[in-house]
Amino acid sequence: MSDKPGQYTFYVNGEFLPMSQAKISVLDSALHGDSVYDTLRTVNGARIYRIDEHVERLFCSCRAAAIDPDISPDDMKRILNELLDRNRHLLANNDDAWLIPRISSGSLLGGGPNVMVMFVHLPFRLYAKFFRLGIHVIVSSIRHVPPQCMDPKIKYDARLFMHIAERETRRIDPEAATLLLDIHGNVAELTDASFFIVRKGTVITPTTRNVLPGVSRQVVLELCAKLKIPAVEKDFQLYDVYNADEAFRTGTSYRMMPVSQINMRHLWKRVPGPITQRLLDAYSEEFGLNIAEQYLSHLSSDERAELEKEKLPHGAE
Amino acid sequence: MSDKPGQYTFYVNGEFLPMSQAKISVLDSALHGDSVYDTLRTVNGARIYRIDEHVERLFCSCRAAAIDPDISPDDMKRILNELLDRNRHLLANNDDAWLIPRISSGSLLGGGPNVMVMFVHLPFRLYAKFFRLGIHVIVSSIRHVPPQCMDPKIKYDARLFMHIAERETRRIDPEAATLLLDIHGNVAELTDASFFIVRKGTVITPTTRNVLPGVSRQVVLELCAKLKIPAVEKDFQLYDVYNADEAFRTGTSYRMMPVSQINMRHLWKRVPGPITQRLLDAYSEEFGLNIAEQYLSHLSSDERAELEKEKLPHGAE
Amino acid sequence: MSDKPGQYTFYVNGEFLPMSQAKISVLDSALHGDSVYDTLRTVNGARIYRIDEHVERLFCSCRAAAIDPDISPDDMKRILNELLDRNRHLLANNDDAWLIPRISSGSLLGGGPNVMVMFVHLPFRLYAKFFRLGIHVIVSSIRHVPPQCMDPKIKYDARLFMHIAERETRRIDPEAATLLLDIHGNVAELTDASFFIVRKGTVITPTTRNVLPGVSRQVVLELCAKLKIPAVEKDFQLYDVYNADEAFRTGTSYRMMPVSQINMRHLWKRVPGPITQRLLDAYSEEFGLNIAEQYLSHLSSDERAELEKEKLPHGAE
Amino acid sequence: MSDKPGQYTFYVNGEFLPMSQAKISVLDSALHGDSVYDTLRTVNGARIYRIDEHVERLFCSCRAAAIDPDISPDDMKRILNELLDRNRHLLANNDDAWLIPRISSGSLLGGGPNVMVMFVHLPFRLYAKFFRLGIHVIVSSIRHVPPQCMDPKIKYDARLFMHIAERETRRIDPEAATLLLDIHGNVAELTDASFFIVRKGTVITPTTRNVLPGVSRQVVLELCAKLKIPAVEKDFQLYDVYNADEAFRTGTSYRMMPVSQINMRHLWKRVPGPITQRLLDAYSEEFGLNIAEQYLSHLSSDERAELEKEKLPHGAE
Amino acid sequence: MSDKPGQYTFYVNGEFLPMSQAKISVLDSALHGDSVYDTLRTVNGARIYRIDEHVERLFCSCRAAAIDPDISPDDMKRILNELLDRNRHLLANNDDAWLIPRISSGSLLGGGPNVMVMFVHLPFRLYAKFFRLGIHVIVSSIRHVPPQCMDPKIKYDARLFMHIAERETRRIDPEAATLLLDIHGNVAELTDASFFIVRKGTVITPTTRNVLPGVSRQVVLELCAKLKIPAVEKDFQLYDVYNADEAFRTGTSYRMMPVSQINMRHLWKRVPGPITQRLLDAYSEEFGLNIAEQYLSHLSSDERAELEKEKLPHGAE
Amino acid sequence: MSDKPGQYTFYVNGEFLPMSQAKISVLDSALHGDSVYDTLRTVNGARIYRIDEHVERLFCSCRAAAIDPDISPDDMKRILNELLDRNRHLLANNDDAWLIPRISSGSLLGGGPNVMVMFVHLPFRLYAKFFRLGIHVIVSSIRHVPPQCMDPKIKYDARLFMHIAERETRRIDPEAATLLLDIHGNVAELTDASFFIVRKGTVITPTTRNVLPGVSRQVVLELCAKLKIPAVEKDFQLYDVYNADEAFRTGTSYRMMPVSQINMRHLWKRVPGPITQRLLDAYSEEFGLNIAEQYLSHLSSDERAELEKEKLPHGAE
Repeated sequence: MSDKPGQYTFYVNGEFLPMSQAKISVLDSALHGDSVYDTLRTVNGARIYRIDEHVERLFCSCRAAAIDPDISPDDMKRILNELLDRNRHLLANNDDAWLIPRISSGSLLGGGPNVMVMFVHLPFRLYAKFFRLGIHVIVSSIRHVPPQCMDPKIKYDARLFMHIAERETRRIDPEAATLLLDIHGNVAELTDASFFIVRKGTVITPTTRNVLPGVSRQVVLELCAKLKIPAVEKDFQLYDVYNADEAFRTGTSYRMMPVSQINMRHLWKRVPGPITQRLLDAYSEEFGLNIAEQYLSHLSSDERAELEKEKLPHGAE
Repeated sequence: MSDKPGQYTFYVNGEFLPMSQAKISVLDSALHGDSVYDTLRTVNGARIYRIDEHVERLFCSCRAAAIDPDISPDDMKRILNELLDRNRHLLANNDDAWLIPRISSGSLLGGGPNVMVMFVHLPFRLYAKFFRLGIHVIVSSIRHVPPQCMDPKIKYDARLFMHIAERETRRIDPEAATLLLDIHGNVAELTDASFFIVRKGTVITPTTRNVLPGVSRQVVLELCAKLKIPAVEKDFQLYDVYNADEAFRTGTSYRMMPVSQINMRHLWKRVPGPITQRLLDAYSEEFGLNIAEQYLSHLSSDERAELEKEKLPHGAE
Repeated sequence: MSDKPGQYTFYVNGEFLPMSQAKISVLDSALHGDSVYDTLRTVNGARIYRIDEHVERLFCSCRAAAIDPDISPDDMKRILNELLDRNRHLLANNDDAWLIPRISSGSLLGGGPNVMVMFVHLPFRLYAKFFRLGIHVIVSSIRHVPPQCMDPKIKYDARLFMHIAERETRRIDPEAATLLLDIHGNVAELTDASFFIVRKGTVITPTTRNVLPGVSRQVVLELCAKLKIPAVEKDFQLYDVYNADEAFRTGTSYRMMPVSQINMRHLWKRVPGPITQRLLDAYSEEFGLNIAEQYLSHLSSDERAELEKEKLPHGAE
Repeated sequence: MSDKPGQYTFYVNGEFLPMSQAKISVLDSALHGDSVYDTLRTVNGARIYRIDEHVERLFCSCRAAAIDPDISPDDMKRILNELLDRNRHLLANNDDAWLIPRISSGSLLGGGPNVMVMFVHLPFRLYAKFFRLGIHVIVSSIRHVPPQCMDPKIKYDARLFMHIAERETRRIDPEAATLLLDIHGNVAELTDASFFIVRKGTVITPTTRNVLPGVSRQVVLELCAKLKIPAVEKDFQLYDVYNADEAFRTGTSYRMMPVSQINMRHLWKRVPGPITQRLLDAYSEEFGLNIAEQYLSHLSSDERAELEKEKLPHGAE
Repeated sequence: MSDKPGQYTFYVNGEFLPMSQAKISVLDSALHGDSVYDTLRTVNGARIYRIDEHVERLFCSCRAAAIDPDISPDDMKRILNELLDRNRHLLANNDDAWLIPRISSGSLLGGGPNVMVMFVHLPFRLYAKFFRLGIHVIVSSIRHVPPQCMDPKIKYDARLFMHIAERETRRIDPEAATLLLDIHGNVAELTDASFFIVRKGTVITPTTRNVLPGVSRQVVLELCAKLKIPAVEKDFQLYDVYNADEAFRTGTSYRMMPVSQINMRHLWKRVPGPITQRLLDAYSEEFGLNIAEQYLSHLSSDERAELEKEKLPHGAE
Repeated sequence: MSDKPGQYTFYVNGEFLPMSQAKISVLDSALHGDSVYDTLRTVNGARIYRIDEHVERLFCSCRAAAIDPDISPDDMKRILNELLDRNRHLLANNDDAWLIPRISSGSLLGGGPNVMVMFVHLPFRLYAKFFRLGIHVIVSSIRHVPPQCMDPKIKYDARLFMHIAERETRRIDPEAATLLLDIHGNVAELTDASFFIVRKGTVITPTTRNVLPGVSRQVVLELCAKLKIPAVEKDFQLYDVYNADEAFRTGTSYRMMPVSQINMRHLWKRVPGPITQRLLDAYSEEFGLNIAEQYLSHLSSDERAELEKEKLPHGAE
């Protein structure tokens, strides 16, 4: 994260406040799981990407969770844009940030919903290397909560099971992402991202029965249609991952990023694979900046050179 | 709730603060579901009931959730007792309060866990009538999260599915409690309480596969042993509820309370049933005050008279 | 129901009898669940709609249930048509009726299958208002029987679980329909109808893994193809219902009818929604009469005016 | 069945009628699965065995199915006893009969519940040989309906899935009984009986999560307690059946009967096994007649001699 | 099988050996389930059909099972071709053979994987009649192992559950094939073949969630595309089988073969059905020999005449 | 393993052979999963521990798997004892060995079952340190095969899923054991051992629904009864493991052994815990030798001293 987060402005219930003062009562229902949220990011610090789709999804979450947001989608967009305006001067040239709105059902003492929006630098240095080396993935022994209990299409905060799963992963491999299966063994989603494989030229991702309808996930499906790369949403299993030709994940901050390992096994010869690379290029064009390059620009030239060396034997596997 | 909650003192990370200043950064992980909690109550404003068992359960929750609390159980007990000391003067003669400690894994910006403790009046007036009339129960169409995803034995905050279920219940019957079945159709627990039935003289409650190991639930099992009332923990289904002779629930605030309706059907002739009443009497003795009487003392004499009248046709059913 | 049902003629095992004499031995296996049935309706009292498809489905039910019907599909059609002929004079101008054939495996004392056909007026007055206001839907806490036990594609009589679920619904909202989820939480079917949602212009209905292959359901899918409205059969969950733009149900008597509430929440701005209306218009054309108008014609003009007024605030929501 | 069933008297809604006139409208809801029933039998034609327990179970079924019986348990007992009185003269010396009360929720045209009681000879000749040879059991590929859909503790009529399973069994072995597993693979119950195994001296039967709380099942558990034979209700699987030392089933007519084959394999050396025989002897005493002997008395002496011969090689296996 | 199997040559770990000497240490991990395999067959004794696809599948099995084969796909193809060369002189004019490579993870005492290849005559005489009469299918009460435990897409040896299921089938009907359902009741696969139905002109087969991605299954889907016969991979249930117009199975040896019975019921009028016949003809062309004719050529002319007679009443059903 | 395994004698189908000649045809059905086995061990090289129970379990496996062993239990015991006699001279003073009988259904070419018995040194050096430090346990993301597919009470060889799970574990921690949950998330068994926890003085182990009825598991339950340590077989979840006071595993070779880590977390202060130690002492007495001491005797005194040092910080945790 940035070295000056203390200067950020956040939004809490109608007020724009310095981050250090952006607080919420310990009586807020969000501390007892009764909240939904969304994550958006800026493009070149200039604008918020697909703000309409993100705000629509946030309001869909409210509707399915029966939380009355008590503001309109347009109000929310105005808040988000103003928050960016107020923080823009803190962004360096190659910087971008998350905007994270959250709506809780309110205080235990009553009153309406509470609305907060955070503004947080993207972790460029942390993730940069994954664009060259791919990220590792560990399959959790904890299964995703089934939709008859809590629908993953709601972007909800009450995700302790995911935090526990991530802590298990980190004890094994501190830099790995955590892949959840559903209770029937179908591949579902990463705890913080959508998951894709490519097999025999077809891009495959799980159905929304088991996953958040990710905005970046949707962009990839649109790009597949545009590039005439066959793409399907369907149930698949770890067999398909082990025998895939490529794999990648999508998320709000990095948009899409190659995956290189599953359960501590290297499975793909080239990372990123050719279709992953084509989609990443198309995504950069659609997004309005070179996604990988922006991340890598946060490394020193020594670090970048080191990275290319590390990449070599990998590519040769 | 009390008319002077603004004067309460809360605890946040080492400081005792007025309730209005008891706030937590919106960056706290508890807002993203990464926290556990417990609920304790006072007896006659004098002491905290079974503080050892509650604190042990809180630390069991931490251990299973892999949240490092970074304080010792003894520290936690000291905080709880001090918090009671600081608030005791605000309690009326027949008042008692909840103490609600919560431990989150900390801020998104790093640093250790955050520890908060709330102090909240018990809702005596709200619940008083249920001691005479019994509470209604509605079975949710939402199923309890299975233990392979999130173990109900952890007292965790990330319970959006329960809030959604409660909102559904309230649209049907604003005063009803919400009963969850597990994904196989076994009776599990109320969203905020343990559930018991009595059939042919035996007290029956679900196993801990599906429920929080409630402290009050445990007290009832101990009292059954003491009173030589047969009691079993086992899977049972709605058939058994519909054909039970009595039903009750247990929770931190009211300890135990009769249930009178299930899915909008009156099923039991006398509320409370005879075994429920015996247990409630024994519980009052064990607890050190007449539980029902304390609740009813918060009603006016007119309200109490009204309640007795309302009770009549019920008992005659 | 009509005021002269006593004059109806029914069919029982080769005989056409007055309704009051249409009886079956209490030894019949249908009383122990060993029977299948179907429901057909007349169009303008003149003909039976899609008699071939209904009779084919009835014989599919027999085959899957291993009940030997001991008559041919052509015989069944002859019986149905003759039954209509014998009752036609009892139908008023704007009336229509159900024909309900049932085939049981026979008497406990042996002998072949028993074949009965009932002739019953449609409940026009009861359902008329739903064409203006939409019908309410409550999700049952009882799950649909899974196909590995009893396949919902068989139109079978042994549906006690549905009767129990309907009684639960009626205690909450006497006019609501009952929606069943499958044991995995996918939306399945109403206890007496197929269920559809419309989202972002696409008509969506569950797959036949979980539902009766409704004839009216099939007509709607055909009309979508004809009108070039995208339509898919797939698993979906309550999230999708809460975030749908429209919802409707289909059944033999009313063919299709808008839905306005789910779990006591109004979710859709206009009822019927625009695509529902387009399909209803097309259905009326395909069916040979204005479906909604026929229902509404059974109301007095005062009742119709009242209905329009009640509709207003609804549409304004 | 008897050769003079036409002379039996049945009960239908307040009337005692000759069997041939005991009919119910085809509009009755029982034909659409909305009914519960029970089965009782006479002892030496003199009295009805455990009438209190059977009638209590019938009313438990009503309560769980939310069917209002509209008569009292005492009324039902009076009806059953009077029906026996009216038919007693039709019973031969060594005869006994079933009494089968059924309560449906009523006619589709409205009105209260319908109450019927059948009187049916026991199939002595059909079952006699099983007391010497044991009955065969086939495990169905159809699973028992799970309790979250329809609770097997309700004695309900809507059992098409069981009829289908029985027809599958009969195509394989016309005299075999059908054993259902639950959807997790635990042994549940026979389609028409409770199932028991004996292993290493312990009598084992499934829990009531998956089975009807059979009256005869309960008698066996009581006899085990009396005879100090260890007995448990628990989940078990086919492994335990294949490795059991004995197996038997219990039902209303024959009370208890040895099982000799499972899935076309002879598994037990002696049929009945020693504990089965002890229990059968104790049951005869409790019941007031020699159960097996009564069945065998319906065979000719040639048939009995034949049976003993057939038994021999079996015992030698 | 052939009358001279003793003269066959097998392959074991680098050596070509007479069958009688093709042995493996009892310490090999394949005896403890740690192996994968594949099955290929020859065409006219001249070449191995689709060797590339089979070897690719074998290596996919290795990858998903994390067994390091320690040889390359090209090496494996060379071994297979050489094995055919060494055995070709043992094949009669109308003969063909299986080649069955197996790779185990190695000895319990350590060392690398063990590679074996068997060469086995096809059982032409055994299967010939099924091309005229169709094969019988029995649904097992044992469910297929779910993919979250063991993925059926891996062609693995550890199939005791299938052997047990087959033994159950054989006790009922010694010539029947065994159909497995998945644990949700969807039709999965035969223990030794893929399963297809044809309904209303569409060819339907289960998805690969539940089945081996059969090479012959794939050929049929390709032929459907070529012949413009609609074909889908989807979940279906026994209802669909009972109401199908045709059914067939596919496997390595016989490629495709009509099915005539399910659970001891004849369900289809003509065997093979018209679409089955079209596909079989197209398959013969693609395969390079008349598949059915080759099988039937192993019968005597008397046997063939007998077969045609037996077929008659069948066709007339 | 021993340095002279080449001198061992094995048994194959009636012959006692040097290990290097103990081979089985690649046509044997055991290579396709159709076999069962058992594992026994010697005590002081003198006798086989509980040979009766092991052989009985082997024959139970045969019966449940429908494999006809074609020899008697007494024959099997004679073979096992003779095999020990023939190998005893190869055992050093403090050595002991496994005897591993396996019965396959036979060759693909027909003929009866094949019977093999291996004789293998125990891996004393490999496991010795676990008696001081405890063994690590990793929970697999692969679930145990459910009993409706393949009953874990059968000791069968077809365990590829376990081998895959073990390979996953080993990539994380080469010395860890692999714990399987059942498909509902209950703790089942280690891939090669039974699993126990101790909580608040009670010894807890899963029921046999999910696990092999281990002989050593049974001994521990017997010792608990003898020592009056409460012990229960029941479903439990990972919460109970994380909050247990002690954990251990049991198996044929080491009989019982402390567990120190679960999912890379140290959870218990003292390893072995006090109840584990009491049981281990009692087990040594019952077994006739000091179990831990025998293992540790295979280490050099330097290695033992090193081990004690490594243990210290552990105990201090």
